[in-house]
Amino acid sequence: MFSRLTLHRYKTKLIFHFILTLEKTMEELNKQLDFIIELDKLKGIYRQALVKSDNNRFENSAEHSWHISLTAQILHEYAVEKVNISRVMSMLLIHDIVEIDTGDVFAFSDKDVLAEQENKEADAANRIFGLLPEQQLLNYKQLWFEFESAKTIDARFAKAMDRILPLLQNMRNEGGSWVKHNVNKSQVIKRNEYLEGLAPQLWLYVCEQIDHAVKQGWLSDC
Amino acid sequence: MFSRLTLHRYKTKLIFHFILTLEKTMEELNKQLDFIIELDKLKGIYRQALVKSDNNRFENSAEHSWHISLTAQILHEYAVEKVNISRVMSMLLIHDIVEIDTGDVFAFSDKDVLAEQENKEADAANRIFGLLPEQQLLNYKQLWFEFESAKTIDARFAKAMDRILPLLQNMRNEGGSWVKHNVNKSQVIKRNEYLEGLAPQLWLYVCEQIDHAVKQGWLSDC
Repeated sequence: MFSRLTLHRYKTKLIFHFILTLEKTMEELNKQLDFIIELDKLKGIYRQALVKSDNNRFENSAEHSWHISLTAQILHEYAVEKVNISRVMSMLLIHDIVEIDTGDVFAFSDKDVLAEQENKEADAANRIFGLLPEQQLLNYKQLWFEFESAKTIDARFAKAMDRILPLLQNMRNEGGSWVKHNVNKSQVIKRNEYLEGLAPQLWLYVCEQIDHAVKQGWLSDC
Repeated sequence: MFSRLTLHRYKTKLIFHFILTLEKTMEELNKQLDFIIELDKLKGIYRQALVKSDNNRFENSAEHSWHISLTAQILHEYAVEKVNISRVMSMLLIHDIVEIDTGDVFAFSDKDVLAEQENKEADAANRIFGLLPEQQLLNYKQLWFEFESAKTIDARFAKAMDRILPLLQNMRNEGGSWVKHNVNKSQVIKRNEYLEGLAPQLWLYVCEQIDHAVKQGWLSDC
């Protein structure tokens, strides 16, 4: 049997432990809510892509992330190797979050501009994912770096989706952002090359579309 | 051994089969691409929620779907029963697609308006998911109806996320759409009740926030 004093000490310890746990959880929840509210800012980051159905206004990176995430889910069975579609979708939902700090840079910008953007994005990933509790911070950062490095099948498929969607949008919008920025055929081919080995049928489709775009004058033939 | 004629017939049959399969796949791919392009229209469907970081413009349903999908992923561990977070995220990514045909109706509208919207949305689900090849059409429609019926744990958690996010947004925006539409406390409590049994800690947080909103005059006290 425990003495009264021991029991009292045990109870006090339990209550203390409970309060500490609750405080820790409240602290974690507050971090998570701050991150969720921070995400709102991605809705104000505009890309060069145009939203045809909304008076051709610029597309923002939040709605773009939604769109490619679903695009990946719909097209993932064209991948010749198995992709983990849940991971790919999570990757695509977070891939542009860094733009909250850096803004978007047009995909066909100069090499120097793109390299500078890459450095800025790594800092942004540290700051923004750093708002989260440790485990989620590590998970999301790992996922974001995996996407950026584009070495795994999941990341390469995610990249391919991020690149095929603007092509689909431009093809249904008389060239869209390609025309505005005088983009050429070889740039679009290079940008979509991830598909070649990953999903040959989609690659074939993309090549046909690029040829058609050149014929229509939406892409320069070089 | 096969005769030459038999071999010839076999080869012809194979080629014929290959062409048919290719045609079927091309037909499927075209359906999928039509659906993906149709999704673009959700970016032009505006809700009553405001985007604080983008000059308090109205939020569209595409970027909202992106935001709650990530919100669910970040908060799913508060659910006392296990949720299948990948399913929940897919559900949230597609839950508003029907608004392409129906538009958005404010959550605190009259009962008649909400009931009429429900009927319209079922027709919209048939038309929009009907653009997809059969298996995907069935999968997405089932997922959408599951969300709407809100009977499974996954669907109830998804609903809860769809409702907690506008609260978070309004709390960081001096009442946001609540103030504009003169919403009252009991309406917001009722709308967030899914959380009570599902995620008590989030429910507690929401109740505290609602009390604070009343004190600030962002919600009427009735």
